[in-house]
Amino acid sequence: MDDDKHLSDDFRVLNDQISVDCVIFGFDFTTLNVLLVDRVMVNEETGEELFTDLTLAGNHIYEDEDLDEAAARILFDLTGLKGIFLEQFKTFGLPNRISRENDRLWLAASGRNPDQRIVTVGYFSLLATDKVTLEWKGRNVRWMPVSEITDLAFDHMDILASALEALRHKLLNEPVGFELLPPKFTLSQLQRLYEVILGVELDKRNFRKKVARMKYLIPLEEKQTGVAHKPARLYVFDRQVYENSRKELMDFAI
Amino acid sequence: MDDDKHLSDDFRVLNDQISVDCVIFGFDFTTLNVLLVDRVMVNEETGEELFTDLTLAGNHIYEDEDLDEAAARILFDLTGLKGIFLEQFKTFGLPNRISRENDRLWLAASGRNPDQRIVTVGYFSLLATDKVTLEWKGRNVRWMPVSEITDLAFDHMDILASALEALRHKLLNEPVGFELLPPKFTLSQLQRLYEVILGVELDKRNFRKKVARMKYLIPLEEKQTGVAHKPARLYVFDRQVYENSRKELMDFAI
Repeated sequence: MDDDKHLSDDFRVLNDQISVDCVIFGFDFTTLNVLLVDRVMVNEETGEELFTDLTLAGNHIYEDEDLDEAAARILFDLTGLKGIFLEQFKTFGLPNRISRENDRLWLAASGRNPDQRIVTVGYFSLLATDKVTLEWKGRNVRWMPVSEITDLAFDHMDILASALEALRHKLLNEPVGFELLPPKFTLSQLQRLYEVILGVELDKRNFRKKVARMKYLIPLEEKQTGVAHKPARLYVFDRQVYENSRKELMDFAI
Repeated sequence: MDDDKHLSDDFRVLNDQISVDCVIFGFDFTTLNVLLVDRVMVNEETGEELFTDLTLAGNHIYEDEDLDEAAARILFDLTGLKGIFLEQFKTFGLPNRISRENDRLWLAASGRNPDQRIVTVGYFSLLATDKVTLEWKGRNVRWMPVSEITDLAFDHMDILASALEALRHKLLNEPVGFELLPPKFTLSQLQRLYEVILGVELDKRNFRKKVARMKYLIPLEEKQTGVAHKPARLYVFDRQVYENSRKELMDFAI
């Protein structure tokens, strides 16, 4: 939790010691990014800037809200998007979550007690970077490549690392990435998606062998148009076939 | 959360609206059980028993405790066991979590406000039923077969269902069940473990085919002794081989 308390003045907050933090991943075929919020701490008397750093996007839970709803609200407030993939992955509550000086100053400045531990429920989301309008009431919001993030406020580096693990696990077990591709896509685009999210380079031949086993990936008779190179075959993702194969798998797979 | 508040009188509780609930699964080669705690509500004036029902084991978090530590403490208090598999799987916080009359009476009787929502962090554990000494300061604790549970206090049926899904997912993706077997075991024992936890009957031939792909399952030259039927070959689980194959898988598996 790291939000500006003023944001929630119009609502009654469930409890000051419970929050939700969203790790919003953005994919753009080149980089895996994450949505961060600038935190600028100013000395209120002198106007002097004390520090600037970055946090994940978090907020308290309102009295009538479910945890999922609170996370969806934060996502919507930042991106203008609704109904996209958003999943709870872990709750964080180490006693020393709020021990760094900057974090303590920040909380104290907004009238909160830095000695009061906040337990935060982590959610992660994955969306196409270019689909987003970034805005968060008075604070700057920006995409930053995951690989370039070296420090965040609170324990947000831990939350990010844990979210990244959850995202990669999800990608390896479910076709979560397909929503980031156009409805018809090439295998090169699919490979790029896996490479960017997993943060590795994949051998093309091995990749195609593995992909051939995905029965829910349907080759079309259609090929790319308007490309300089030899046009590649287009594929679609068949959700129904996936759901069915998933059921079989759950019947028994080890 | 459903514990008796008196249990935590000696400690300062982090926050009345945050708790941990443990879904402790017990395996015994016949049944998948879960550990439940009796809740007996008595009219303090007349001594009349108002109701008896069952809850999962939960408690608040103490001031110096991490969430994991709180869950481990609950598990230890109930079973006397330490250092066994225990994993956070989901946090629950629906606004109507505490809406049933019995739950409201119970909370009110121990001085808590039933209108105050409690957010609870769910953990699940898996252990051999017979290894456990059951005890929980003044309340009866018992194993009950998962298939026979039709009602629990609060939203504990939802928490149980979600834990069961997490356990089965885990079993299908990781060799989490091996700790429930003797160090040397037969394929029939292994099959039984999967059948009991997944709640299905498996075809022996298909099962053996799948098992043959588990490189971390090492056949021994040794066979069973002291059995009436034809002695079966014994196997061991090789954690090192598993860890290595896991690394390869994470390099890229779809």
